[in-house]
Order: sequence, then structure tokens, then C-alpha cells
Amino acid sequence: MHCSSLAATRAAFAAHHRYLVRYGLRTFSTTVAAMQLSSAATAAAAASSSTPSSSDGRKVLTVDTMNQHIRTMEYAVRGAIPIRADELREQLKSSPNSLPFKQITACNIGNPQQLAQKPITFLRQVSALMEYADLLGPEMIETTRKLFPEDAIERARRNLSYVGNAAGAYTHSLGIHEVRQNVARFIEERDGFPASADNICLTTGASGAVERVLDMLVSSPNVGIMIPIPQYPLYTATLARLNAQAVPYYLQEENDWQLSMSDLERALSEARANGTDVRALVVINPGNPTGGCLLSSNISEIVRFCEKHRLVILADEVYQTNIYTGTNPFVSFKQVVAQMQSEVELFSFHSISKGMIGECGRRGGYYEAVNIDQAVMAQMLKLASVSLCPNVQGQMAVDTMVNPPKKGDPSYAQYAAEIDAIFQSMRRRAKRLATAFDSLPNMSCNSAQGAMYVFPRVTLPQQFVDEARAKGVEPDSLYCMQMLEATGISVVPGSGFGQVPGTFHFRSTFLPPEELFDDFIDGFKRFHMGLLARYSPKI
Amino acid sequence: MHCSSLAATRAAFAAHHRYLVRYGLRTFSTTVAAMQLSSAATAAAAASSSTPSSSDGRKVLTVDTMNQHIRTMEYAVRGAIPIRADELREQLKSSPNSLPFKQITACNIGNPQQLAQKPITFLRQVSALMEYADLLGPEMIETTRKLFPEDAIERARRNLSYVGNAAGAYTHSLGIHEVRQNVARFIEERDGFPASADNICLTTGASGAVERVLDMLVSSPNVGIMIPIPQYPLYTATLARLNAQAVPYYLQEENDWQLSMSDLERALSEARANGTDVRALVVINPGNPTGGCLLSSNISEIVRFCEKHRLVILADEVYQTNIYTGTNPFVSFKQVVAQMQSEVELFSFHSISKGMIGECGRRGGYYEAVNIDQAVMAQMLKLASVSLCPNVQGQMAVDTMVNPPKKGDPSYAQYAAEIDAIFQSMRRRAKRLATAFDSLPNMSCNSAQGAMYVFPRVTLPQQFVDEARAKGVEPDSLYCMQMLEATGISVVPGSGFGQVPGTFHFRSTFLPPEELFDDFIDGFKRFHMGLLARYSPKI
Repeated sequence: MHCSSLAATRAAFAAHHRYLVRYGLRTFSTTVAAMQLSSAATAAAAASSSTPSSSDGRKVLTVDTMNQHIRTMEYAVRGAIPIRADELREQLKSSPNSLPFKQITACNIGNPQQLAQKPITFLRQVSALMEYADLLGPEMIETTRKLFPEDAIERARRNLSYVGNAAGAYTHSLGIHEVRQNVARFIEERDGFPASADNICLTTGASGAVERVLDMLVSSPNVGIMIPIPQYPLYTATLARLNAQAVPYYLQEENDWQLSMSDLERALSEARANGTDVRALVVINPGNPTGGCLLSSNISEIVRFCEKHRLVILADEVYQTNIYTGTNPFVSFKQVVAQMQSEVELFSFHSISKGMIGECGRRGGYYEAVNIDQAVMAQMLKLASVSLCPNVQGQMAVDTMVNPPKKGDPSYAQYAAEIDAIFQSMRRRAKRLATAFDSLPNMSCNSAQGAMYVFPRVTLPQQFVDEARAKGVEPDSLYCMQMLEATGISVVPGSGFGQVPGTFHFRSTFLPPEELFDDFIDGFKRFHMGLLARYSPKI
Repeated sequence: MHCSSLAATRAAFAAHHRYLVRYGLRTFSTTVAAMQLSSAATAAAAASSSTPSSSDGRKVLTVDTMNQHIRTMEYAVRGAIPIRADELREQLKSSPNSLPFKQITACNIGNPQQLAQKPITFLRQVSALMEYADLLGPEMIETTRKLFPEDAIERARRNLSYVGNAAGAYTHSLGIHEVRQNVARFIEERDGFPASADNICLTTGASGAVERVLDMLVSSPNVGIMIPIPQYPLYTATLARLNAQAVPYYLQEENDWQLSMSDLERALSEARANGTDVRALVVINPGNPTGGCLLSSNISEIVRFCEKHRLVILADEVYQTNIYTGTNPFVSFKQVVAQMQSEVELFSFHSISKGMIGECGRRGGYYEAVNIDQAVMAQMLKLASVSLCPNVQGQMAVDTMVNPPKKGDPSYAQYAAEIDAIFQSMRRRAKRLATAFDSLPNMSCNSAQGAMYVFPRVTLPQQFVDEARAKGVEPDSLYCMQMLEATGISVVPGSGFGQVPGTFHFRSTFLPPEELFDDFIDGFKRFHMGLLARYSPKI
């Protein structure tokens, strides 16, 4: 791409665009443009691949001269609908009765503490003591003991000893060594197989880890990375920015979103037949946006597939503790690879943003590198070093996540109660929302076996579909925008994640507080039934 | 580059490599390789552009198949010498008397809290209260008041109100709106010209901001970005990763590192004559690694130069409060651009990692975008949204930096005293170190007008230079490695930043605690004089 003319570049983008559309990955541009949105959303529309050129010809940096790989990139989770939701939220502040709803219900992003989920007390206590270490000094410690449990005090002292009492200093670029050792111990206990701190790298959330690994893998525009459809758009966005090929495969909606080996084979052989250098397979388990959990038999098949076809596995396992059914427990790729004594190359990603901790704003995460070439590991250290280090409190939160209070510790009871309350409530909400969606006409919804999302399928009246197409809008995007304007509920259209062409979905988190669920579900029902009624003669 | 064959790619890298060498930018590889270092450094050597291929032909991801732009990237600040320093530090832990020194003195990186600089109490108090907000609740507040001043409590409550009491949630991708407003106010007060929150983006340190802006600017391998020589290697590393051209210009060592307009003209016309699409100019003021501060007359000339030649200005101003002489006060590019009513496009970068705050591990920073096209701003919002948001405590530390306690506030006296003590001590250390280096034979050193570094020039005996070259090592790298092995002082060779070919420098921070300065300077003197003595007959 890079050495071709701009025209050729444009043509290539157009081709890739058509390719993604084939997989139901809608384009931000067309969707937004036709919605006659207000300023912010218009700016968002300007941020799309079909932006008109800057009116100001005198500028050096314009949408025409800028990095066109960023220009074509899409990221629906924070796209047009959330931007419109922000505007409506502001409107409600100034005139609370100006809209058919009293509040915005943000179901577009897995951001639990934004929706009143309480932080885990022990994690915050340790963190607070590290921030203001004078609390641990001789003058204050007695008063501190009135506010903090002894194990939080001990933990903060231990954490500070990890960084030579300098919580404000850069750490090693791969993260604090002792924290990486604790992560390795956590993985060993989880899987029953050895793990090494040398293979753990702490990162700025799992997103930072995924971006870094993809950057390592992409050596030319011809490199392809297999991604699930539907997928979390971090993957298509990053591959677009890196100017690489997304090689989509379908998750089987009718089979609780498991992977189909035959579809993997089909996708891979198609891409390689087209000359794409397919190097890696992304699996998101538990699934985002699907909520599906892979059976260990399915994971073994995937590992064998990647061995056979020489593919690196990227296992996005950030929802590994968000598991709601007995039938589909979480099984890590690392465990299966170790059991099979496979030499397949694996990067596994984890995060403090999900699970019951939900510390999204802290930006902490890690990857484990399994069977990765040592010289490549040295290159990844160099790459990490340019960004200096992940933030220290994010690293320390990873440590608390992998090393929580144990039975007998002063904080254990409260910690266990907080985790369990969040877990039980999430499980109830997952069931209620999936059931509610599944019970409506023209809708079907798999149960959420894990993660924080359901991905219901909506059968839209043909006339509605035609009207949307006539406006140049993806039908599911129009459906979600109308849902927002009618109910204040902000979800993400299926076309932001990809879906089987001709099918329509949306992703909704089940994170709103339980006490709001009746209103939430009633509001949605009214909107959905109302829409069907308006079009019923045509159904 | 991307669509050429791997062989052609290699050739292009080799050419770019020669180009950088012309500007005295040494290569990590040759330097390290010849030093017969131990495992970690060997790994670092493996992380160099001349790595032998992986022995394991079965791997999918190897140094030969990986992204070659990352492979060729250099980052000396955390390169071979700091890696060797880490090993020696470990050795001292296990056998304290096994080396000619008792401790490693890390002068390779501006990381003040690692060298016992105390954090600013108010910042940490506010941060601790935000972490554990129960301290502000009715049950605990009375006890909390015994440990925290009233203004820290008020500030924490205000900060929490900015995020709807959800310090653990993702924020807006550009950062918390109120913090961006406070940053804009800070800039208005600093410069005396309007600033808008809409033009402020909070980032993961200034490094994250620089990487994002460069990613926007680089639309093809033919794009060139002018960088100072010597430079902070973030710029060459990021340009190498993005596969763009570094277009080096020289800072005038004999003129306190000011920019020479004639050399800017020379560098630009050479590059454009070679067909490079030069789009932007990077200026680091106060200078890293030079410690120089630009006079406002020089800044005006630079702005005019960029207007005339249609260049975007990237102003790296992270050391804007590290100013040690009356003769060269800090003047922001934003102020000069506003005074001149220039329409030049400007990105200005600031950070919480430097100044007197030195919160490196918190990863907070921002950029201000001036005269940037609105559609480009929308693209930058989209790019930011893929990474979700910068960490909340980093954002809040930016807020405290731009909005410290005011006269009359309970915390003002302590805050002002802490800032002043750090500032006065840094100024004394800057002077002492520059004077000490400047007083030695075969050395000259400009005074540090700002920042945290001196960049002394060393005239190495010809025989030493010949011996280094014979080993395939950059002479200044060999000098710095010998300094480390003899004294435990870890500095960065000038070739990691670039220098006039045939000249040799190193960058040393002046951050070691003042009480260690005598030993530090004596140790260095012994090493330097000893080296000269060994080679004196040949001088």
C-alpha cells in the first residue's frame, strides 16, 4: 500500500471496505452521515472514511493528507450512538423534561463502575495507602489503623517494597518483576501448569497488549489475522491502522457462538488462496460481543488447527471470571496448550477492567507469551521500553486481582462478599436480559454464558430495512439510533462487530443497576413493539 | 516500503541506517554486540537490527518474520547500558563487595522519584482520598480530618464529582472535560492568550501524545519529520516504527544549543530535494538531552520558518518548569504563535513526569492542538477512543499540576515549600554537575539552562576511538560502558541521541540526591582521568 499512489491507496481501501461489508461490518460513515445528527455526531461523521476534504486548503494536516489508515478505521463502541447519547445526557441536565425518558442508560460499553458498581474495597484501600505512604509512617499509623485493616496496610507496605518505596517512579518496561511473578503464580494455580514471570508483560489494559502484539505480527499489508465475526472492534480498528488484513471467520449463533472448524478452514483457505499471509488467529473467550464460552473440546480443535496451519493464537480472555453457567466453565488456552504439550505460539490477554473488579479507568492488564521465540521477546521488551512503563497503580491492581485476600485474612470476608454480590447480580441480570429479548417477537437471543453482553438478533420489517438502505444507513444502526432517541438506551449495532449479511443484531451490556431493570426492559419493549406495530401491515 | 519485497525492504532499512549514522545516531546492535555482555544484554543485542535469525525454524513469529520497522527501531535511554546496570544492581544485592562501587547511580533516565525525590504531598493526599472514597463518607470523615488537610478533602470531592463518583470508570476518550477546562485555564494564565478545552487531549504521558500525533502525520514512508540532533530517541524510535523519515537538523552546541535557521533551511531543502514530503518540525524546549532553553526571538524565527515552509510544529515542552537561569526563561510556542497571530499548526506537549512533580509512573500528560483542522480533530478523537481513555489518576494528577493549592489554602505553604526545595536543589545540582564536567581535561559542558540533563562533550584519545571502532563499537558507547563498570554510574551515550559526526557526548541527569554528589563527581573524575592517563602517551 505504502509505495502505491494515493489513488491506488484509495482503491485498495475501497476494496477492503467492500470485503468487510461482505461480513456485515458496517461503515461508520454512511451510517452516521444519513442520520442528520447534531454537531458532535457530525464531527464523528467527519471522522469517517468518506469525509469531505477540509474546506481550509491552507492546512498542512487535513483528512486528505493524514494517515489514511487511521481515516478508514472504525470503532463503533464509542461511535455515533454513544456520541449522540452524550448530547442527550447534556440536554437532560439542562432541561430534564425535554425528552421521553429521564436518563441515558449506557449499555454500549462494559464500564460497570459508571453504572454504580462499587469498587472492591481492599483494592482501593491498598491503593490509597500506596498513594499517600505517610499514612504508614510512625506519626500517622495509629490513626491509619482506625481506617484501614491490617492486611491492607501490610499489602501496601509490600507493594511499596516492590518499587523501592517509589510509587511515582517509572518501573521496568515489562512491569514490576514481583508483580509479574505473582501473575505467573496465579496462572499456575488457575491452570495447573508452569508459568514464568519472564513470559508476563504488564500493559496499559488488555487493549495496549493487543495493539502491541498485532504491531509485532504485521510486517506487511499482505499479513492477515483471523478474527471472529462478530468481534470486538479493537481488532478491526487496529488492523486497519496497521494496514493489515482482517480475515473474518463466523461464530455459530445457532450453536451458542462456538467456533466451527469447517468455517475456520474455509476462511483460511480462501484468504491464503488470495495470497494473504495469514499468521494468527484471534479468539475472544468468553465472547465479546456474544457472551459465548468455548468448550474445552472446541479449544483443543482450535489449537490443533493453528498447529496444522502455522498460526499464532491471540486469546482474548479478559472475561475469564465472568462465567454464568455450569455447562461452560472457563478453560484457558494456556491450559489446553500445556495439556496437549503443543508448541503452538500463544499470547493470552487479561485485564483488571472486567471480571468483578471492573477497574476500567485504571488501565491495567497483562499478556502471557507462550512458546514465543526468545529474540522476539527481546524485541517486545524494546518496543515496551519506548512507552517507558504501564502506570504503577494499574500494575498494582493487577497484583491485587491475581493475589486477593485469603481465608483468614482480616479483609477476606468483605472481599468475598463484595465479589460474590457483584457476580450473583451480574448472573441474574444476564439471565433476565437474555430472556426478555428472547421472548419478544422478531427477536432471538442466546443466553449469556459469560462476559458482560448479550447480542440479540432482530428480524427487522422489510420496509424498515428498505427505508434504512434508501437513507444509506445500516438498518441495525437506524434501529439502535431510534431506540436511543425513544428510550435513552444506548447500545451498539451489530454492524459495528460484524454479522452474517442479512442478519441484524445489537450488543447490550447487562450492567445497569438491577433496580432499573424493569424500566429498562419495559422501555425497550415499548420501543420494539411500537416499531413492529408501525410496520406490521408489511410484516 | 510495504509493497516492496523483503530484500528491497532490508536495503531501504540499510540506507536509512546509514543516513542516521551520518548524524551520529549509533546503532544499538553493533554497540552491544561487541561488548560481550551477559544474558540480558545479549537479549538486548538480539533486539537489534543485525540479529541473527531465530535458531528455531518452526516458529511463525521470528525476528525475520516480525514487523521489521520495530526490529530496526532504537531506544538508547533503556538500552544496553541500563540493562547492564540492572544486572550489576542484582549482583550488588547478592554480593555487595564484588564490585568497585557500592551502588548503581542511575543517571540514564529522568526518573526523579527513583532517586529519592519525595512526591508532592497535596497531590498524593488528593489521590489517596479518591482511591478510597469511603474516607470522605460520614462514618470516617472525622478521623480522615486528622490525617488530611481540608483542601485536599475538598479537592478529592470535587475530582470525584467530575467523574460521577466513579473513579474506576472509563472517562471520555479525550479525558475528563473539567480537567481539560482546567488545563485550558492554566495555559491562558501562563501565556496570556485564550485556550479551549476542545483543543486539549489528556494522554498516557507526553510519550503517548507524541506517538499519536506522529501516527496522524505519517501517511507514507516518504513523509519526513524534522527532528533536532541531539534528540530524545522517542522521536527516531517512533518514526522508525511508523516507517517514516527522520529529517535531522543540528542544535548549535557552541551557541547554548539554540536552533540555527540556516541549518534548518539546509536540512529542509536537502530532504525536499531528495523528494521527502517534509511535514512537521519537532522542537524540544527546554532541551532533552541538551538542557538548552530557546530564546523567544529564536522561537519566533522557527514559527516564521514553519509558516513559510508549511510545517506543523510539534513543541515538546515537558520541561517548561525546569528553568534554572534568568537569561533564558521558558516561552511557550503557543504564546509566540498567538502573539504573532500565526495560523501555523501546532501541537504542544506537557507531562506530569517532569517539572518538580516527577510523577513518572503515573503516566499523565496532555497535548494542546492549535490551528488544527476540525475534521482532523474528529479523527484524533476516533483514534483516542480505540484506547478507551488515559488512566484516571494520571488525568487527576494533570489537574493538580495545572491547579495547585493557592495562597491562603491550608496546603499552600507545604506545597510551595516542597516545590521550591526540589527546584532549588535541582538548580544547584545542575550547576555543580555542568561545572564539574566542564572543568575536566578533554571535556566541555554547556550549563543546563533547563530540563534535567547535561550533555557534555568528551574528546576521546584517538587510540581509544580506534580500539572502539576495531571492536565495531561506537566510541562513546564503549566510554559509557566502561564508566558503568568502573563507577556504577549509568549514563546514555551521545550516539543514542545523535551528535555531530566525530564528536562524542553522553547524557547525564543531575537527579542523584545532593548528598551523593561528591562521591558521584569524584567517582566519575577518577574514571575519566584514569582513562586519559592510560592513553595519555598517545594524546
